[in-house]
Amino acid sequence: MEHLRDKVLACCRQIAQFSRSPGETTRTFLCEAMHDCHQVLCGWMQSLGMEVSVDAAGNLRGLYPGSDPTAGRLLIGSHLDTVPNAGAYDGVLGVVLGVALVESLVGKRLRFAIEIAGFSEEEGVRFGVPFLGSRALIGRLDEQLLATEDAAAVSIESAIRQFGLDPALLPAAALDPYTFAYLEFHIEQGPVLESIKEPLGVVESIAGQTRLTVQFTGKAAHAGTTPMSLRRDALAAAARWIAQVEDKARSSPGLVGTVGRLEAKPGVSNVIPSQATAALDVRHASDEIRTRAVDNLISAGNDLARERGLGFRVIQQLDQQSIEMQPALVSAATRALQKVGCRGHRMTSGAGHDAMILAEKVPSVMIFVRSPGGISHHPEETVLPGDVQLALAAGLHFLNGF
Amino acid sequence: MEHLRDKVLACCRQIAQFSRSPGETTRTFLCEAMHDCHQVLCGWMQSLGMEVSVDAAGNLRGLYPGSDPTAGRLLIGSHLDTVPNAGAYDGVLGVVLGVALVESLVGKRLRFAIEIAGFSEEEGVRFGVPFLGSRALIGRLDEQLLATEDAAAVSIESAIRQFGLDPALLPAAALDPYTFAYLEFHIEQGPVLESIKEPLGVVESIAGQTRLTVQFTGKAAHAGTTPMSLRRDALAAAARWIAQVEDKARSSPGLVGTVGRLEAKPGVSNVIPSQATAALDVRHASDEIRTRAVDNLISAGNDLARERGLGFRVIQQLDQQSIEMQPALVSAATRALQKVGCRGHRMTSGAGHDAMILAEKVPSVMIFVRSPGGISHHPEETVLPGDVQLALAAGLHFLNGF
Repeated sequence: MEHLRDKVLACCRQIAQFSRSPGETTRTFLCEAMHDCHQVLCGWMQSLGMEVSVDAAGNLRGLYPGSDPTAGRLLIGSHLDTVPNAGAYDGVLGVVLGVALVESLVGKRLRFAIEIAGFSEEEGVRFGVPFLGSRALIGRLDEQLLATEDAAAVSIESAIRQFGLDPALLPAAALDPYTFAYLEFHIEQGPVLESIKEPLGVVESIAGQTRLTVQFTGKAAHAGTTPMSLRRDALAAAARWIAQVEDKARSSPGLVGTVGRLEAKPGVSNVIPSQATAALDVRHASDEIRTRAVDNLISAGNDLARERGLGFRVIQQLDQQSIEMQPALVSAATRALQKVGCRGHRMTSGAGHDAMILAEKVPSVMIFVRSPGGISHHPEETVLPGDVQLALAAGLHFLNGF
Repeated sequence: MEHLRDKVLACCRQIAQFSRSPGETTRTFLCEAMHDCHQVLCGWMQSLGMEVSVDAAGNLRGLYPGSDPTAGRLLIGSHLDTVPNAGAYDGVLGVVLGVALVESLVGKRLRFAIEIAGFSEEEGVRFGVPFLGSRALIGRLDEQLLATEDAAAVSIESAIRQFGLDPALLPAAALDPYTFAYLEFHIEQGPVLESIKEPLGVVESIAGQTRLTVQFTGKAAHAGTTPMSLRRDALAAAARWIAQVEDKARSSPGLVGTVGRLEAKPGVSNVIPSQATAALDVRHASDEIRTRAVDNLISAGNDLARERGLGFRVIQQLDQQSIEMQPALVSAATRALQKVGCRGHRMTSGAGHDAMILAEKVPSVMIFVRSPGGISHHPEETVLPGDVQLALAAGLHFLNGF
């Protein structure tokens, strides 16, 4: 497997050079550089005897037929687009590992077919909407979505045409109805596996997510002439609320709560802030725990505002339910990890992935590969060669488990 | 006094029309509009038999001689410049009340002379340095300061020349050595007098002030994939620190502590902030209480950072000592207020004023006029006509008290 491990790493690094912006890795939906990316992977897959095509959503699809045409197919994939100034492994690693697994069969046919999918879009950078590639497989890249425009007023539909594809053929991009499972390898993009010294983990659920903006409104006043008792300081209230977000998340296992953005107005050092606006992100595998936490935090914000004579406003931006991976596949992946000496650690993915979309139509599971330093969406994002080797070995056990 | 009260209010409102920016009141150091302002006040003072001049720092000076040339002089003044988009009373009211007090003498000479000073600059808007006008009276508008440039690279010295004045004559702007007291009327610019239903108050000290910037530095990470226990969230630490600033200030009478500016980076809703920078403003009449509070808050910041594995940095911008008003003058002003039916409420000014500068060389006192709604530095800044009438009456008692 050492040769294959090195080939996986080299391929990821080669693809990282295909970019819209020289000197960094930035591949948005169907940008020119995606052609180079397809070419490299297409060449490799064809050399393995696979049938390769690009569907109308720009997803690269490769089929390695099975020996029994009635045995259905296993889909293995991830995405080929990136965030701006990305690393070399987010998404790409999952596609390349899939191809490498086919190579590891050295021409042997399994009973079932293996389909590799390199999704055209997962990050949502170009159109502000994520998962465009995997949505096409479940029939959710509809006309309304196709009309979405990027910053240059180019619609998704036009972008598809400009790449040389025909949007009219989108229905043919749909998931083959005999697909019995979806497997996605992905870097963890977090510090958990590293902190427990495990190379690989099995995702048993993808966390639900609430995103909202809260705004406290008080009254601007002179920082020197206004006694503490006569203030209506919006930032002081927001600060207490942020502390409550952290307390709440810390008190409930698996819950994460983050205020990533905070703006205080007028933002002058000797003026008491009249307005503080904070962005909240809350995630948990249990929708009940998540929504209860969010309700508590909203009510805490209301209490703070009432006690202090402030206005309080909540704008909800996202309320996305959690997605369970299929239990039988989670067990199968756990066994595969254990066969290569891993603990088979089960975890919740705090980030969204294509598996979340596909799970709607097909039993799905994900295997996480440890992210050194928890670093992702950054040029320093990396993987350990030994972990990649274990992922390949575990993947082969997974294939042989059906 | 009703006629004089109306004249004071009308004069303030007339002067508010002299502005660099049409439709609002903005008069920075020696801008063109200051000529109009001088003209109005000069005309009024000359009509009262005063000798009027503009000194080399651009201060309007009017002298109403006394009957005894050996009795010295009482200086009454405030500033004529404004913040951008200001109200009509901050500064100007104190100058206009001084002139009106001379008018209220209806030609009668007191034993001592009265000098009225309309300072050219107090707010620090144009050059980032406040109190340029009053500094000239105590010999602190020195060569180094004169070289300070505004945003258009015009030095204070050049601005003086452009206004038609000669910087070489600055020594002549010095305070007359026989000046025995300085009286400054000023709007409170805060809510205290309104909250205790008093029209006027006596300033017994001007608070010392610390301004500093604190910066917590942690590590940016994914808001979904990073468990609470593995975070180094700079904003969460800053939020707890802001709560401590408020707790500290609330726990010590007279102490005010404000975080008016807070910036979190990278400032993305699904990324844990790696850096949070907050501006702190702390004021108190006692320098010991203020510096002890600041030391406590810095050490609290260090504790928070240490507990959370964050960096913590403090940049001190200002450490200005508190200034006592002269006790005998404070008593005299208190008696004057009580003679017109006020309580003679004594207070600390949380904001800096020209009296702070003059106090270095001459016994000084201030009388605050209630600010409706505590509003200042805003077009809605106002005064109650009845309060202005009481200020005139109290001022006359103050004059007659020597």
